[in-house]
Amino acid sequence: MTVERLTTFQKQLKTENIAAAFIQGKENIFYLTGFRTDPHERIVALIVLPDEEPFLIVPGMEKPLVQKAGWTHTILTYSDTDQPWSILGNALSRYTLSGDSIWVEKRLIPLERAEQLQQLLGQKQLLDAEPALMQLRSIKSEDEIAHMRKAAQLADFGVEIGVGAIAEGRTEIEILAKIEYELTLRGINEMAFQTTVISGANSADPHGKPSNKAIQHGDLVLFDLGVVVEGYCSDITRTVAFGELSDSLQTVYQTVLEANQAAISICKPGTELGALDRKARSIITEAGFGEQFPHRLGHGLGTDVHELPSINETNTDKLQAGMTFTIEPGIYLPNQGGVRIEDDVLITKDGYELLTKYPKELQIIRG
Amino acid sequence: MTVERLTTFQKQLKTENIAAAFIQGKENIFYLTGFRTDPHERIVALIVLPDEEPFLIVPGMEKPLVQKAGWTHTILTYSDTDQPWSILGNALSRYTLSGDSIWVEKRLIPLERAEQLQQLLGQKQLLDAEPALMQLRSIKSEDEIAHMRKAAQLADFGVEIGVGAIAEGRTEIEILAKIEYELTLRGINEMAFQTTVISGANSADPHGKPSNKAIQHGDLVLFDLGVVVEGYCSDITRTVAFGELSDSLQTVYQTVLEANQAAISICKPGTELGALDRKARSIITEAGFGEQFPHRLGHGLGTDVHELPSINETNTDKLQAGMTFTIEPGIYLPNQGGVRIEDDVLITKDGYELLTKYPKELQIIRG
Repeated sequence: MTVERLTTFQKQLKTENIAAAFIQGKENIFYLTGFRTDPHERIVALIVLPDEEPFLIVPGMEKPLVQKAGWTHTILTYSDTDQPWSILGNALSRYTLSGDSIWVEKRLIPLERAEQLQQLLGQKQLLDAEPALMQLRSIKSEDEIAHMRKAAQLADFGVEIGVGAIAEGRTEIEILAKIEYELTLRGINEMAFQTTVISGANSADPHGKPSNKAIQHGDLVLFDLGVVVEGYCSDITRTVAFGELSDSLQTVYQTVLEANQAAISICKPGTELGALDRKARSIITEAGFGEQFPHRLGHGLGTDVHELPSINETNTDKLQAGMTFTIEPGIYLPNQGGVRIEDDVLITKDGYELLTKYPKELQIIRG
Repeated sequence: MTVERLTTFQKQLKTENIAAAFIQGKENIFYLTGFRTDPHERIVALIVLPDEEPFLIVPGMEKPLVQKAGWTHTILTYSDTDQPWSILGNALSRYTLSGDSIWVEKRLIPLERAEQLQQLLGQKQLLDAEPALMQLRSIKSEDEIAHMRKAAQLADFGVEIGVGAIAEGRTEIEILAKIEYELTLRGINEMAFQTTVISGANSADPHGKPSNKAIQHGDLVLFDLGVVVEGYCSDITRTVAFGELSDSLQTVYQTVLEANQAAISICKPGTELGALDRKARSIITEAGFGEQFPHRLGHGLGTDVHELPSINETNTDKLQAGMTFTIEPGIYLPNQGGVRIEDDVLITKDGYELLTKYPKELQIIRG
């Protein structure tokens, strides 16, 4: 699959009259080569030329991993005492770069590397490669969707383990440890982001962190977690009650659930992205909680846990088949608790498929 | 403490005649403000001016976390539909920026943000803030050292759990899951990097990944792990044997141990950093394994798991009291196994202190 992606990308270079693309974001490298890397400060870059073979430059000790990933083109390597930019410069000097511009990832490439690249390439202008790349990445292929389904299933499983672990006096961190332990045993070596298990008043902070707080009767317990499967992320949020909820929290729950379902119900190719946010937001605002929903409705999901499309009020782009993103309305009442219900949605040819399937009706756990 | 750091940094701006510093790397923000953030693609930035109060710009929902971290200066906020760069531009327009240059983190600031900043600020030149910042960060204060000691203790504990979990037929992933579970229960919510438990031939890859391979008699088992405590990282590697080792692996073990101890033994203020690498490398090379030690000896450690100083052959900088870094020689024999022994070292006034204390003599686990 990565061969096709790389060929498509190369064609775009040609069409746009770009001399070369210098790709160094790890998700983009993975997308175009199948090679997953986490090189810390060392440079790993993919160079794509319109009419020549692409090549990778990696630290010497990563070469076996590149080969294992199925890369059959040139691999330049360097040691910790080499100058990778000279090695790259030598390699590039073998080509005549036609075209005045170089594609880089403006969102990702550090200024230092951009300056190095401009020194190597002289007067070329740096243009952004990501509109083209993100467009490619935002429409998932069947094999990518298969990984995302698997990642979503394991996110459902994580919530199931977490809900099963709720008990009076058990702490947020104990529940979180149990979730991650069970996921690790099932082969997950990377969570998509830090797992959240927060309860009671803690759940009222949209960015709250798990603590040693014990679960108490009347608490909401909010789980927000995701896993990475073959490079693809999931991201689910569910909120359950431990014992009876106050009337106001019950109203909050039903409002968030309604907003989640209403936004999902209009998902299909052609719908404006902003319409999803406005749909959910209007339900929450009409119920009187507009001020307590302080974030956008959702974000694209793929090899990055936050990618295109952005589901916010003002986005006028249209949904397309193959897009995958989250829908995650939330209401947060200070000192009482917060509810967020988040699903991963795939746009299909004539509607949508929910990748996350954990039940959403208010679940009351008896102590 | 962060107040002093910020004051020192502000004085440097003044001395160097820098108009403003725009800091957006999360470790640098944490270092200067005490506020830990992981804003994904949203911008969080600290603006420091030579003669005015510093201020932060953060997404609205992070404001309570900034306040909780003890920040008493101005906080600008924005929502997902605001334009943070306009808000920042308005704020900056209230000041007369004297000086022709702006400090940014060239290693970290994406080209996109650098271009935005230049649009806001007109003809100012962007210079690198990190030499000054990294210099500050590379010398740890007593409170930072206390966090690093705690992080190293928990890394020791992680190895202890891992070694205790070794048993015939148990998989690498099962052992890893147990380590992270126990650390999570002790309040660790962030590993410093992906935990490695690799055994037998898998351990021969310096970047090998844990798998479902079961531990077998005669295997080396290599643990590489670290935790984050109050923002500070640890990073330990230990290698143990399950059952009797082949003669060649025993020789490898003793050689790596000798290299580790020899490099540590010359740690004190004034020693050239490159000398540590050369010392360890000469021992490994003389034993005939030079080609099988393909990486630098170590790296600085602090709020980043890889920071200054870099312990490589050609680094002519000198050790200074308060520096913290790893010493991690390794030898990797393809198809047989690898040994790496890694400690976290603090340079003291007249020598060194080992932060990691897990024993290093060859440990043979009986099945």
